Amino acid sequence: MIPVLDIHKKEICRIDKLATGGKNDALTAKTHGEKILEHCTTAEYVPELLPQGVRQDLKTLNVLQPDGPSFKVSDESLVEWQKWRFRVSFNPREGAVIHDVHYDGRSVAYRLSVSEMTVPYADARPPFQRKQAFDFGDGGAGNCANNLSLGCDCLGVIKYFDAVIVDDDGKGKVHPNVICLHEQDEGIGWKHTNWRTGRAVVTRSRVLVVQFIITLANYEYVFAYKFDQSGGIDIETRATGIVSCVNIDPGKTSNYGNVVNPGVLAQNHQHIFAFRIDPAIDGHSNTVITEESHAVPMNPKTNPRGNYYEVRKTPVEKAAWADAEPRLNRVFKIVNENIKNPISGNSVGYKLVPPATQLLLADPASVQAQRAQFAQHHVWVTKYKDDELFAGGRFTMQSRKEVDGVADAVARGDNTRDTDVVVWSVFGLTHNPRVEDWPVMPCEIHQVHLRPTDFFTANPSIDVPPSSNKASVEVPKSCCQPAQGKL
Amino acid sequence: MIPVLDIHKKEICRIDKLATGGKNDALTAKTHGEKILEHCTTAEYVPELLPQGVRQDLKTLNVLQPDGPSFKVSDESLVEWQKWRFRVSFNPREGAVIHDVHYDGRSVAYRLSVSEMTVPYADARPPFQRKQAFDFGDGGAGNCANNLSLGCDCLGVIKYFDAVIVDDDGKGKVHPNVICLHEQDEGIGWKHTNWRTGRAVVTRSRVLVVQFIITLANYEYVFAYKFDQSGGIDIETRATGIVSCVNIDPGKTSNYGNVVNPGVLAQNHQHIFAFRIDPAIDGHSNTVITEESHAVPMNPKTNPRGNYYEVRKTPVEKAAWADAEPRLNRVFKIVNENIKNPISGNSVGYKLVPPATQLLLADPASVQAQRAQFAQHHVWVTKYKDDELFAGGRFTMQSRKEVDGVADAVARGDNTRDTDVVVWSVFGLTHNPRVEDWPVMPCEIHQVHLRPTDFFTANPSIDVPPSSNKASVEVPKSCCQPAQGKL
Repeated sequence: MIPVLDIHKKEICRIDKLATGGKNDALTAKTHGEKILEHCTTAEYVPELLPQGVRQDLKTLNVLQPDGPSFKVSDESLVEWQKWRFRVSFNPREGAVIHDVHYDGRSVAYRLSVSEMTVPYADARPPFQRKQAFDFGDGGAGNCANNLSLGCDCLGVIKYFDAVIVDDDGKGKVHPNVICLHEQDEGIGWKHTNWRTGRAVVTRSRVLVVQFIITLANYEYVFAYKFDQSGGIDIETRATGIVSCVNIDPGKTSNYGNVVNPGVLAQNHQHIFAFRIDPAIDGHSNTVITEESHAVPMNPKTNPRGNYYEVRKTPVEKAAWADAEPRLNRVFKIVNENIKNPISGNSVGYKLVPPATQLLLADPASVQAQRAQFAQHHVWVTKYKDDELFAGGRFTMQSRKEVDGVADAVARGDNTRDTDVVVWSVFGLTHNPRVEDWPVMPCEIHQVHLRPTDFFTANPSIDVPPSSNKASVEVPKSCCQPAQGKL
Repeated sequence: MIPVLDIHKKEICRIDKLATGGKNDALTAKTHGEKILEHCTTAEYVPELLPQGVRQDLKTLNVLQPDGPSFKVSDESLVEWQKWRFRVSFNPREGAVIHDVHYDGRSVAYRLSVSEMTVPYADARPPFQRKQAFDFGDGGAGNCANNLSLGCDCLGVIKYFDAVIVDDDGKGKVHPNVICLHEQDEGIGWKHTNWRTGRAVVTRSRVLVVQFIITLANYEYVFAYKFDQSGGIDIETRATGIVSCVNIDPGKTSNYGNVVNPGVLAQNHQHIFAFRIDPAIDGHSNTVITEESHAVPMNPKTNPRGNYYEVRKTPVEKAAWADAEPRLNRVFKIVNENIKNPISGNSVGYKLVPPATQLLLADPASVQAQRAQFAQHHVWVTKYKDDELFAGGRFTMQSRKEVDGVADAVARGDNTRDTDVVVWSVFGLTHNPRVEDWPVMPCEIHQVHLRPTDFFTANPSIDVPPSSNKASVEVPKSCCQPAQGKL
């Protein structure tokens, strides 16, 4: 039952009864009787309520940093770590934002943020066409940020940042521990064994993680900006929490989702994210270059043996959208055309590898699609404009269409060559729920990668000291194993 | 200079002089003079040879497991961990292989292996069309496996496995520490905060990693099978080591690659991998189902508001190939049609999410393409046949075409419905080198994901105990920060 309220008159207009039918029922059929919960069962996730309790065989794993962290934080916002330097801020809409990113004194980005996310649902029955969250524009990621606790959301030595937000009465309020900062080991960074000498050199990859977590009613999202020692930046999302669901009659199945517990229909939906990347590659005058790798038919002149492929580069001259195209290995290079790499002669730059994921499926004429123009292409290139921060527009709550989002920004037709550009990276997950997503879904992880391409004059992590961790321990080999050389 | 030898006659046929020209030189031009190395400079990566030494500001990060590992190894091959149970073996061609994978007593897979990898180069000048490694078929991943050292290639409590290989004289030889097994923390596993009560439950994701590392002359590859607590399996590759390069004249640039150091042209190339997945979803009679999510035009009958999308499932009836199609969110479900999930009514299964990466670019008529049929599609579904393990065929060394690889297996046209099927997952990276890949490239990471889909009756990691790590430490907030509630 959904009461529909006229907020001005303070009157209930009507009460919508939700359909609970299955595959063979009509679209608008209200098939349920009075006892619609009788076939449902409980589904607990809180440890003390689990019928079998928690598993007992997981041993402790600690991350210890006996000499403290490798990072330094000043002014509660300036972070310095492994040649990186940037500032962290926090606001009610975007959550954690990264500013003025430099590596080894050179500018890389002016501002990195999570701009918007929309979650449209695909159940054709009314009123489910209305189920479409804009988590950043409607709820405010900063408003919904978790207050993080030591030992729960990260391991090791952790720096927490507080924020000040406005409470319901309009007063300032400290929102404690909304961002955490810590280092992680990410496996092997680079390795080479010289086969002539047998000498192996191996480094481990250490990354610095700026993380915040939001709860939007049922769902959780973990966002992380990850900086590595090779000059790379990953922006990561993890989707977790509880899938949104509705009641379904006993024994029925549905074209609109999956039955994940008796009586529980988890509806099919998408999550489409937009990251805003405001680059500053050695300054603000930047250009986006589309680079593709094309097959070339065998021919005597340029490809006599058929093994050649052609790398094509095309600058984005005017504000535009583009889609991922893995068949062409399409990557987007953000370069400074005024500064050439002294080794290769190419413009210094960073590349964005757009995740090739499904875009918005709703019909272009639908309200869902009209509200989320941004969700219909993978990459948008715009010219910087003050306050233009939100891919889906500033006002998304109960909107009918996207206003002043990236589509409008592109429509201005600004020049984007050798100027202050902004790149918006859109990707998503089509989430047709599994039974395994119930009652709380395991994290589904997606990342956007930014990588230096001819920005540096060599691998910037070549000076990371080789790994020889003294604290690691070997499990003894069993007695029955042949001893080395004794076979 | 490349001497070409007649191995039977033991005679040198000719000596090929390599071209060293650039963009405006003819294909076969040998433009270099006598002193082709004079403009080259050294490029060191061994720490004691680095001109500036190693960076000094990286603090120690230790992984400690005071109660020991959570895994148990018996017979030097049977691994049990967090409801998973499988065996590990090692052979000269494939390296580490995983067998008889079970979760909570239920069968998931019969055999998981890395089957082949080819690395074709795109330099159109002779004799570079010959540059095409088949790292597994030519060199043998097991033969080339590194002997791993404590504290270098993993952190924490590590179990190493030895293998026995045949040496150059045909004698058995112990190849020590060729596989390592350890646990890793992988960040948040699942989380939910009940907004009514404020109660947050958060678990950390622990994964078990079976890793081996190979050195093929210049390149390194790190392979890992990763098992998580939610029933997921990731198969991961990290490409690192030294890019293959040739000499280039001073001041020139090339269409065939990038100049990464003076005189050093790193040629454009691809790495295309094939993983072999021999599933056993609750037994050996399995079916592969292609599942796609399709947009549906708005229409009064089935999609009145335009928000609906249709999920289409198509079983693979006969041996076939298929490609990734992220526009349709195409996933491949490996199911057992004889066993239904009691909650959803769907066949129990696991899904393969094929990475949407560029396939082989060489002209289909080229020797490169003829030798690597497997590299031309993302997914191959075949019926199990004894000894059919190698995607590119058994004999790849100096082959002219692929024989008895996946293309031939598919050509048999076997029935693949409800029988013993094998799924081959192909993905690659088009590697147009960056200056940052020199002298040793930072790891480039790719993963193939296998995830349960209606295999279990709930999230299998719901019983993982919540995280409250006692060893984590907070960095104190600075004195100038407003104290909580005191603003």
